[in-house]
Amino acid sequence: MNAPAHPAAVVPPLPQELLAALQAEFGGRCSTAMAVREQHGRDESVFDVPPPQAVVFAESEAEVARVVALCAAHRVPVIPYGAGSSLEGHLLAVRGGISLDVSRMNQVLRIAAEDLTVTVQPGVTRKALNEALKHEGLFFPIDPGADASLAGMAATRASGTNAVRYGTMRENVLGLRFVNANGEIVRTGSRAKKSSAGYDLTRLLIGSEGTLGVITELTVKVHPLPEAVSAAICFFPSIDAAVRTAMQVIQIGVPIARCELLDTNAIKAVNAHDRLGLKEEPMLLMEFHGSEAGVAEQAAVVQEVAAEYGGEAFEWATTPEARTRLWSARHHAYLSGLQMRPGCRAVTTDTCVPISRLAENINASIDEVEAAGLPYFIVGHVGDGNFHMAYLLDPARPEELATAERLSAQMVARAIALEGTCTGEHGIGLHKQGFLLDETGEEAVAVMRAVKAALDPLGILNPGKIFAG
Amino acid sequence: MNAPAHPAAVVPPLPQELLAALQAEFGGRCSTAMAVREQHGRDESVFDVPPPQAVVFAESEAEVARVVALCAAHRVPVIPYGAGSSLEGHLLAVRGGISLDVSRMNQVLRIAAEDLTVTVQPGVTRKALNEALKHEGLFFPIDPGADASLAGMAATRASGTNAVRYGTMRENVLGLRFVNANGEIVRTGSRAKKSSAGYDLTRLLIGSEGTLGVITELTVKVHPLPEAVSAAICFFPSIDAAVRTAMQVIQIGVPIARCELLDTNAIKAVNAHDRLGLKEEPMLLMEFHGSEAGVAEQAAVVQEVAAEYGGEAFEWATTPEARTRLWSARHHAYLSGLQMRPGCRAVTTDTCVPISRLAENINASIDEVEAAGLPYFIVGHVGDGNFHMAYLLDPARPEELATAERLSAQMVARAIALEGTCTGEHGIGLHKQGFLLDETGEEAVAVMRAVKAALDPLGILNPGKIFAG
Repeated sequence: MNAPAHPAAVVPPLPQELLAALQAEFGGRCSTAMAVREQHGRDESVFDVPPPQAVVFAESEAEVARVVALCAAHRVPVIPYGAGSSLEGHLLAVRGGISLDVSRMNQVLRIAAEDLTVTVQPGVTRKALNEALKHEGLFFPIDPGADASLAGMAATRASGTNAVRYGTMRENVLGLRFVNANGEIVRTGSRAKKSSAGYDLTRLLIGSEGTLGVITELTVKVHPLPEAVSAAICFFPSIDAAVRTAMQVIQIGVPIARCELLDTNAIKAVNAHDRLGLKEEPMLLMEFHGSEAGVAEQAAVVQEVAAEYGGEAFEWATTPEARTRLWSARHHAYLSGLQMRPGCRAVTTDTCVPISRLAENINASIDEVEAAGLPYFIVGHVGDGNFHMAYLLDPARPEELATAERLSAQMVARAIALEGTCTGEHGIGLHKQGFLLDETGEEAVAVMRAVKAALDPLGILNPGKIFAG
Repeated sequence: MNAPAHPAAVVPPLPQELLAALQAEFGGRCSTAMAVREQHGRDESVFDVPPPQAVVFAESEAEVARVVALCAAHRVPVIPYGAGSSLEGHLLAVRGGISLDVSRMNQVLRIAAEDLTVTVQPGVTRKALNEALKHEGLFFPIDPGADASLAGMAATRASGTNAVRYGTMRENVLGLRFVNANGEIVRTGSRAKKSSAGYDLTRLLIGSEGTLGVITELTVKVHPLPEAVSAAICFFPSIDAAVRTAMQVIQIGVPIARCELLDTNAIKAVNAHDRLGLKEEPMLLMEFHGSEAGVAEQAAVVQEVAAEYGGEAFEWATTPEARTRLWSARHHAYLSGLQMRPGCRAVTTDTCVPISRLAENINASIDEVEAAGLPYFIVGHVGDGNFHMAYLLDPARPEELATAERLSAQMVARAIALEGTCTGEHGIGLHKQGFLLDETGEEAVAVMRAVKAALDPLGILNPGKIFAG
């Protein structure tokens, strides 16, 4: 499949002096091997790989600073790399340059259970963090599906399941350290829960997609493991009924911890992949956190709402093992879905709208994709008004990509008209730069560009992302 | 009392051409009367009044944009003015210029109950908003005490009671409209609950203290009125015992909605002022929101924790009237406290530390003020690790101000050493510029200055605040 259009900049060769300096300082941790470069120029997006010209594996903040300073001196791009799980072409070296891999900076530096905060290096993944936390009776709620790095999740303002109750990376990062475009180390925030001390540089870095700095440390909020956790699945006669149930649950203020939608196509895919034997009907997968009594109370309210919309066959899971079985359906949906059309690639949408407009957005999107005849499936963080439609494309048929792009653009235009956003959690990257302009207007994008120019005047930090040009 | 040192810029006279243009366009809504100017150059801070050179009362976003554009053309400062309740000298015209009063832009534009969002003009105050919401079964939780304007609360990243459960302005604003330094209108955010669309300009404006733009509209989250609300007061043998109770309640994850401390001095003050007849001992004032069962469960846990620390004499209030009586103690504490020393002015601290360090910070601060012999009282949002010590100063005795400044600086240095912040919710303004540098380091302040220079190259937006120079 050809990559969708993005600036095909003519990339000058890497300055020999820079490469020599990196090789002298980093030895085998600076690689120009094509396999390593290609692995670092690929993400989960539909784009073809433009590999970086070299990859450096940093093992300390000082090393990150050194790489950035060398790149600044030679005006060569730097692309931060964590787990490689981003979805919008964030890692692609469209202007060449160095992929700065921080995955070896994977230490949990401090668990301050008494303050419900944790400080980690950038390459710590969410699963590794939760593994380190579980013996403390704590957990980190942000779960985008992939086992992403914390710094990558911050850089894309990730969320996923649990965000409906615990918020996104925006709400869960207290402070950062990052290396700026000059190779200097900047601290933001503190371990205090709130602060009014100057501009919110923490939030400025969150969602900046590597274009304003390279995150080298994060202090995040963690939460006590709830006394009781209960998960349930429930099937509905139509996707509209499932979505309206989710809408009403949110509108009446049930503090539901997770509220996920899988459409019939997604269920078929996970059944085929995992032999789960689920009923092949639209399904909500929900989870409740709280005291025993609180969880029971929430569950009772939700069952009542679901019944109004014909939701039935509630299946409950209160043990960790039973919950894992239910959640495997959700977590395997994306990869299982891709296997429904062997050899396919996917374009995945990410619109998010005010909760009252969710049914309208989903229903119209289904009508459009059905009319176009493309294979697809839907999963969604419907409690947040956010859902993903994955269009499954045959790489040998470029007209399918064109169709998917048209459907995606229609959906985004509708989401914006419904006062929502083109991206609830994946970011702008390469793919949504036009949508960003449509959504927020040229005045806001001009402000963003002014911030970028002020903090990265040479344009070396992940250039070509968020903004073209 | 002499104002603490701040840049005593030589202010050139207002350009006649600018004044003529403003008077021609705004008529009586452009005032140079000294009484109006002085009222707009005063806030709740300890600083003497440097009045603006004129005041313009804007009645629309277009008028705000027009004033800023005219001021930009003449390079004259613009200071946004809402309710005048800020505490750190934010409104003071230290470089002269125009006070741009948006208090007449006080319309609630839209209540979207089905999405739990509200869109308001900048001058809407929190009490007016809650008045408009109460018939919808909704409320806006941020309560800094004063009846501040929503735009002012956003500009200072305000919080107050309720933040322990509902977050601060940082977490509760979905989107904004603001007028930038060129007089252009910029939109940020959307009505979607979450978004990864580009830099978080919403959060950049929140806490920017009028230095990056003039907020002209806000879309905020609102919440369903809880099914049950219960407030309680509880007295403790020592302030340490009260604080440790609050710490433990937070650490075990009770979703308490409000958790406020009043020290014995504050209780004496409200007793004298309101004849409340409260026991004159350190007191926690708490509130629980949820279902009937949930509230009862939270209350039981908290009573158990309090008992461990000798907390007793719980007094409960479940009716709105009874709650209002209890909360009047908290809301009148500041003004009642000032009346304990007639004619005094107050310097109020605002440190916020990780919850586990709160007792240490409060205890040491009390030891220091007792040793210095200054009259004081304490109120605190202790569930957030934030408290205010008000030093009551005799304006005729400048040495008291010097003592208060010394005590404040000691407390801030300690809070920073405890990994906290110099300001939990009041902002930097004029008073805490040195503390900002101590807290976050010169690299972070340099980044903030770069952002300021990029977005306000002429330096006309509330100059001299957050940063000197």
